Amino acid sequence: MSQINRQILLVSRPQGAASADNFKLVETPLAPLADGEVRVRNHYLSLDPYMRGRMSDAKSYATPQPLNEVMIGGTTGEVIESKNAAFKPGDKVVGMFGWQEFGTSDGKGLGKIDDTHVPLSAYLGPVGMPGVTAWYGLNRIIAPKAGETVVVSAASGAVGSVVGQLAKQAGARAVGIAGGPDKCRYVVETLGFDACVDYKAGNLYQDLKAATPDGVDGCFENVGGEGLDATLARMNAHGRIALCGFIAGYDGAPMPLKHPALLLTQRLLVQGFIVSEHMDVWPDALKELGTLVAQKKLQYRETVAQGLENAPEAFLGMLKGHNFGKQLVKLI
Amino acid sequence: MSQINRQILLVSRPQGAASADNFKLVETPLAPLADGEVRVRNHYLSLDPYMRGRMSDAKSYATPQPLNEVMIGGTTGEVIESKNAAFKPGDKVVGMFGWQEFGTSDGKGLGKIDDTHVPLSAYLGPVGMPGVTAWYGLNRIIAPKAGETVVVSAASGAVGSVVGQLAKQAGARAVGIAGGPDKCRYVVETLGFDACVDYKAGNLYQDLKAATPDGVDGCFENVGGEGLDATLARMNAHGRIALCGFIAGYDGAPMPLKHPALLLTQRLLVQGFIVSEHMDVWPDALKELGTLVAQKKLQYRETVAQGLENAPEAFLGMLKGHNFGKQLVKLI
Repeated sequence: MSQINRQILLVSRPQGAASADNFKLVETPLAPLADGEVRVRNHYLSLDPYMRGRMSDAKSYATPQPLNEVMIGGTTGEVIESKNAAFKPGDKVVGMFGWQEFGTSDGKGLGKIDDTHVPLSAYLGPVGMPGVTAWYGLNRIIAPKAGETVVVSAASGAVGSVVGQLAKQAGARAVGIAGGPDKCRYVVETLGFDACVDYKAGNLYQDLKAATPDGVDGCFENVGGEGLDATLARMNAHGRIALCGFIAGYDGAPMPLKHPALLLTQRLLVQGFIVSEHMDVWPDALKELGTLVAQKKLQYRETVAQGLENAPEAFLGMLKGHNFGKQLVKLI
Repeated sequence: MSQINRQILLVSRPQGAASADNFKLVETPLAPLADGEVRVRNHYLSLDPYMRGRMSDAKSYATPQPLNEVMIGGTTGEVIESKNAAFKPGDKVVGMFGWQEFGTSDGKGLGKIDDTHVPLSAYLGPVGMPGVTAWYGLNRIIAPKAGETVVVSAASGAVGSVVGQLAKQAGARAVGIAGGPDKCRYVVETLGFDACVDYKAGNLYQDLKAATPDGVDGCFENVGGEGLDATLARMNAHGRIALCGFIAGYDGAPMPLKHPALLLTQRLLVQGFIVSEHMDVWPDALKELGTLVAQKKLQYRETVAQGLENAPEAFLGMLKGHNFGKQLVKLI
């Protein structure tokens, strides 16, 4: 009797906000392994804002997620069966198996990881795609000098939390923007940012101004909208903006940039980027990030949903900022 | 009896649109030259969009033009008297004497120029600040590859006309945006652009789309507003935007960028710049531009107002696009 693989498919594209109706849970029997293949029991599924972009078929940097196929997503887990000489049962691996309990692969795109000092879940966070995203935007675009000020939106999140901590290690002043007093307290007290502005407090620009007395030299933008407008108005000459996310705009609401002329008057650099186009930096970045996590010099926080069936709800909540730190789904 | 120097002062700052009331013509006796000084009869005064920014005291890249002082501006002219060993009567010079008929200087910031093959006026246009602005933004920010498409706004103007011609020489497709059929015809037929879109025709996005069948790889932005929105919507992945001017926004009208999320989805680079911060490129750029003008390989057009007293009207007209090519005032 073949084992059952539970999977979540994208079955429709959002009209406006994404909803649970866009997803469907199906059960599919696992086919026997072919020669060269390896089978993985996924332990963690990563939920990330970029997935909202893939749900639409609008022009974007990636081809849309096809309908009626397993939703895309990063996973970590354990090899349970292998007909591939490079893998053996018990190996821990990171891959892109998507929203399902088991993954089957010819080994391409599957990386072995060591969970002795870094837990499996962290390979989907600070020592995974979000961590490298933070590393790239901060080091390759913002490149903060000691004494400069770096503002990070979604500061308690998987990417933002790493940006601010790396900025601090570079000698910069790190200022976060996050939603609510709990997240802001965490950003300052646990992550060690110099300040954090609560955008839900209704006084974003004035609060940001108070938190950035010397202006802003680097902006790591994960959100867009009002926070970006406010940060832009605080930018110093020759500032750098790493554009990483526009989560507020994914639902198609118009979200203009109010004062683009500041880009000229302050001679700013803006660079949009997607970390998968910069694979050359991954080995160095992951090595550095893994060392920092193993040495407890890089803090991170996770919100973990239990069970594949709860992935859509967890994902929709994350788009609304209900998560606190990296959003994961534990599958086992 | 001392000679009279006619000068135009900025006497008030614009509330909304700039107006003739902001300026005042005064007559000032010329003091005798001190040792080390040189006196120049200005032949041409340059009028440039950046001056509108200097009239305001809003946060900008430059200190505002002080009230009740001679308006800032580039000039070319002839030395008429010298107590400075580096200059002798008859020398042709380029400087920043501003809106006045005579300039007096200790020689700093005054450059000797050769008008044998390049006319004096061109040192305020293609072989001056506008030309170097075009050279820097095109070569150092956009850096077009052969076969790529570069869009230039204000394409018939002092900067835009050079951008497109240099882009063509780099093997790129040059597409202009200009106001009215006469300017568009000039841009294509005389300057040699591949196409020019008339933003006054009321169909900007569709016309630009038709003129850029392969999308847009580089944007040299002199204007902002609707043209920038349209160009942004045509940008290919990894496109570059050189932000040089926001003339439409100088009067304080809100001019948001409609779809900033495209900067991320297309992984675009935006760089605001002001050419006076890149003095290191001027010698090479001016040499190249001077050679091209002398060899008639770089076309340019001038609108010349006669007499200092007409400078304010010519300047205000230029801000509304009434000029055709580089706006100058002939003072002699």
